[in-house]
Amino acid sequence: MRVEIIAVGTEILLGDIINSNAQYLAKQLALLGLDMYNQQVVGDNEERILKAFDDAFKRSDIVITTGGIGPTKDDMTKEVAAKYFNKKLIAHEESIEKIKRYFKTMGKEMPESNLKQGLYPENSIVIENNNGTAPGTIIEENNKIMIIMPGPPNEMKPMFENSVMPYLKAKSDTTLVSRTIKIIGIGESSVAEKIQDLIDKQTNPTIAPYAKEGEVTLRVTAKAGNENKALKLIEPVIKEIQDRLGENIYTIGEEPIEEVVSKMLIDKKLTISTAESCTGGMIAAKLVSYPGVSEVFLEGCVTYSNEAKHSRLNVSTDTLDKYGAVSYETAKEMAEGVAKTSNTDVSIVTTGVAGPGGGTDEKPVGLVYIGLYIKGKVSVEKHIFKGDRNKVRTQATIRGLDMVRRGLMSI
Amino acid sequence: MRVEIIAVGTEILLGDIINSNAQYLAKQLALLGLDMYNQQVVGDNEERILKAFDDAFKRSDIVITTGGIGPTKDDMTKEVAAKYFNKKLIAHEESIEKIKRYFKTMGKEMPESNLKQGLYPENSIVIENNNGTAPGTIIEENNKIMIIMPGPPNEMKPMFENSVMPYLKAKSDTTLVSRTIKIIGIGESSVAEKIQDLIDKQTNPTIAPYAKEGEVTLRVTAKAGNENKALKLIEPVIKEIQDRLGENIYTIGEEPIEEVVSKMLIDKKLTISTAESCTGGMIAAKLVSYPGVSEVFLEGCVTYSNEAKHSRLNVSTDTLDKYGAVSYETAKEMAEGVAKTSNTDVSIVTTGVAGPGGGTDEKPVGLVYIGLYIKGKVSVEKHIFKGDRNKVRTQATIRGLDMVRRGLMSI
Repeated sequence: MRVEIIAVGTEILLGDIINSNAQYLAKQLALLGLDMYNQQVVGDNEERILKAFDDAFKRSDIVITTGGIGPTKDDMTKEVAAKYFNKKLIAHEESIEKIKRYFKTMGKEMPESNLKQGLYPENSIVIENNNGTAPGTIIEENNKIMIIMPGPPNEMKPMFENSVMPYLKAKSDTTLVSRTIKIIGIGESSVAEKIQDLIDKQTNPTIAPYAKEGEVTLRVTAKAGNENKALKLIEPVIKEIQDRLGENIYTIGEEPIEEVVSKMLIDKKLTISTAESCTGGMIAAKLVSYPGVSEVFLEGCVTYSNEAKHSRLNVSTDTLDKYGAVSYETAKEMAEGVAKTSNTDVSIVTTGVAGPGGGTDEKPVGLVYIGLYIKGKVSVEKHIFKGDRNKVRTQATIRGLDMVRRGLMSI
Repeated sequence: MRVEIIAVGTEILLGDIINSNAQYLAKQLALLGLDMYNQQVVGDNEERILKAFDDAFKRSDIVITTGGIGPTKDDMTKEVAAKYFNKKLIAHEESIEKIKRYFKTMGKEMPESNLKQGLYPENSIVIENNNGTAPGTIIEENNKIMIIMPGPPNEMKPMFENSVMPYLKAKSDTTLVSRTIKIIGIGESSVAEKIQDLIDKQTNPTIAPYAKEGEVTLRVTAKAGNENKALKLIEPVIKEIQDRLGENIYTIGEEPIEEVVSKMLIDKKLTISTAESCTGGMIAAKLVSYPGVSEVFLEGCVTYSNEAKHSRLNVSTDTLDKYGAVSYETAKEMAEGVAKTSNTDVSIVTTGVAGPGGGTDEKPVGLVYIGLYIKGKVSVEKHIFKGDRNKVRTQATIRGLDMVRRGLMSI
């Protein structure tokens, strides 16, 4: 079955709020095995809402709306839906009682306009709203289903989970199951090249690649009668992708790289320290975002000045003078230095030219040395990252964490 | 003129990513004085994209797309646009050279598929992409304008600001001018309370408040025949807001708090160091995101363990034993310790319970002590922040930086 979502509300069209309902519903509906090919946003205007309903039902079996069922005059989703289906609006006594009670407990006078929230299109299902005064509605007519929900996410989400999801589950005979493959170390187009034939012939499961700074994600999604059958379809595809991308894959799952690295350290009982120049604390901040890291992450240094590299990490002034702060040699001494002064088994360090200024022909903006120390052994990688200051720093952070992962794999 | 935005991409329909581009563009287009009545999201499918273009141009003069111009086969926005306008795709040599150069500097082989990004519909305008390989396109035909931009926000936003906004401004006969007022230290509802009467009577200029973690922003926007006239309308409103919110305002402008603080330090010739426990490097990373900070930011410590607090910052083990790592006393000694060992005029430090675990009745999740050292004087603030681990850490970071700003104001 095909589903489409329509957000009703001028505040989304003005950019005052982000349409987070759309993402939430899209994810939930995909998990229910429903196909979604279109989403719409439309303002508080009768003619345009009617047109949106009409467009949606031309291509979809189920239309879900969010927003426009509050007490004010420009809230009109339910009224327009009644008109679209040629139904009368009638009073839902239970809802009206509830609205009256709500205002009474708040010790407030109920504005007359609030009564309109208690109306519903005849012969439709009223869905209770446990977190607000506007109930939802389900209209079933000529094999079309319209589900009307409130706009505020804290009212919409529980209503969806408690009432709409069970309703839709009962209508659906397929399940969609997804697995995520997360990759660091090769770009989106190289990933696509390596698995192009798999993507080309994809039908079920499907493979969807997407990239964010420094990472590529593949989502493998199968549709089947039940979860087990779907997983059986996914398994061989994941296996094939693993064979082709090898250790560039850092996880089959949702966890971020800092969690993968932290768990490896905890598992291997190894402690870690960081020393950062151009990333300026971003690697440490990522590690600390995983709550469990306190077991293994002892300390980090942001040695932004040469003086700090020398005094905190014992990088020799000779090295700094001869090779410069951004060099293989400095990265190496930083890695050794922070591991020794912090007394950790592992350390990861960065030094680079994040830009926008400071670049030279020899050391261009984007040049970053990443040093890794593991139990006495140091390795240094040289990268030239593209993009603005923030992008260079983010990529250096991700690649630094990934370098720890790769280093730990052989231990 | 009426504008409509279309996001192209299956990953939005599956809920894998949120359509943040839509909110950004909606806001920007509203500021340009363009009307928006509809938004669409459509998957990577030729037939459906064609239909979306057709629907959009039936009701709008300008259609802006995001997404679907990358190197992979399911990226097809430009191809479908060429088909819709009945135009050939031709090679844009400059873009192709740029893509080749990009791969060369990266020291990588260019996958053949990447060349398709260098194609554009004949007789259209190519828009340079300074943050990626896929250029944008503007097609003007029969009084219709289609603007095609990349999906990744870090590519789309600069392209919009640098090229699309000036292009659209030239088409419009009224000017919209905005000034932003940025506030830290009081919440959104307190801000609203203090200026409610101004918001209520707003017509031109308008005042739009919005909040993000730890900050509140007011955008004052005036519409007029030219920029000077618009600024004349804005000035008295800004003055009035300044009178009411006082030093809670950290800037009238766009710069982030770390830039304001860095500039104050540079101006006053004062050096700074950081020592972070729960924020784990986030304050340092923020400071380093401002390129000019290298003049004044000497070093940072992420002293996550008690051992590190003692050995790096000379926090006494007595203090740690008696009061605990999360305490007024520890924050005070951390601030003194890092300023002394780093030999800086100023230091800012954090220690807290970021959660989700580790909270007690006495020291609940969200409790953060922030310590500030300025030339021998230490002050410590106690905060209890709401929200998850990341939210607690972000708020502590923002409030820490703001504490430096307030401390420096009287110097």
